[in-house]
Amino acid sequence: MRIIGIDPGLRNMGWGVVDTAGTRLSHVANGVCMSRTGDLASRLLSLHEQLTEVVAQFQPDTAAVEQTFVNKDAVGTLKLGQARGIALLVPAQAGLSIGEYAPNAVKKAVVGVGHADKQQVDHMVRMQLPGVQITGPDAADALAIAICHSFHAQSAGRLEAAVKRATA
Amino acid sequence: MRIIGIDPGLRNMGWGVVDTAGTRLSHVANGVCMSRTGDLASRLLSLHEQLTEVVAQFQPDTAAVEQTFVNKDAVGTLKLGQARGIALLVPAQAGLSIGEYAPNAVKKAVVGVGHADKQQVDHMVRMQLPGVQITGPDAADALAIAICHSFHAQSAGRLEAAVKRATA
Repeated sequence: MRIIGIDPGLRNMGWGVVDTAGTRLSHVANGVCMSRTGDLASRLLSLHEQLTEVVAQFQPDTAAVEQTFVNKDAVGTLKLGQARGIALLVPAQAGLSIGEYAPNAVKKAVVGVGHADKQQVDHMVRMQLPGVQITGPDAADALAIAICHSFHAQSAGRLEAAVKRATA
Repeated sequence: MRIIGIDPGLRNMGWGVVDTAGTRLSHVANGVCMSRTGDLASRLLSLHEQLTEVVAQFQPDTAAVEQTFVNKDAVGTLKLGQARGIALLVPAQAGLSIGEYAPNAVKKAVVGVGHADKQQVDHMVRMQLPGVQITGPDAADALAIAICHSFHAQSAGRLEAAVKRATA
């Protein structure tokens, strides 16, 4: 199964693609879609085009998007919301199922604790995907989200198999 | 010039299309894109599809989108932001210029005061577009946004013409 993880942001939208077969994980690609100039609509359009190209190129089977951290900065929350709209739209347009994970759930899945810092996440992503070249912190986060989704998909698969065995 | 006005919302996204020739305004169409069930990504996808169809059908020359009212409800702001990302993306994908107007600017343009209530806006939209059948309050707001954009475009046109005369 091929998973794309997406870390939404208006300036930098990180993405990471991993393959998973049973408990084995392997790195496919990672990068950052950037939109730093122009008006808001042009930036959203640019992010949509870049992310659509990534999905077309790597053909993931499923997607995972980080749940946005809602804070007291309403203007920042609105900006992030607009970028997140694009991050959810692109895989939906490709017909992918989409998992959504809170930042703490991602950290807990990858590092083992919910309050891990960025360096720990980066380190554990490198441990899980030996030899990976990471484009930047937003791409590392996106790979962590993809890894988190693979763990959840595995558990769901095991649960399904156990239920099948029990009811067989 | 044909203008589409868009009032972003996740449940109901109002739209209204008007034609403007000099100071003359005429109604073309209005409606509401709805997404009330399913997960967030499916709802954003549905809004994107519906609004893309409206733009393809009515072929506006320019678009106007209401600036979201940022409030203390961070979860609500995030939802609205996600819907607003779609409201900006669709006209950008069609290559339209996009004006953004704050709710008070829209009310001021249509009613004459920035603190007008919904009923007054509805009434003035009907006055400006005689015989219009309005689909609902979100469509009325969208028509008001389109009317506001036509006034701003007129002023900009007059200013441009005056500058041309002065420098001729």
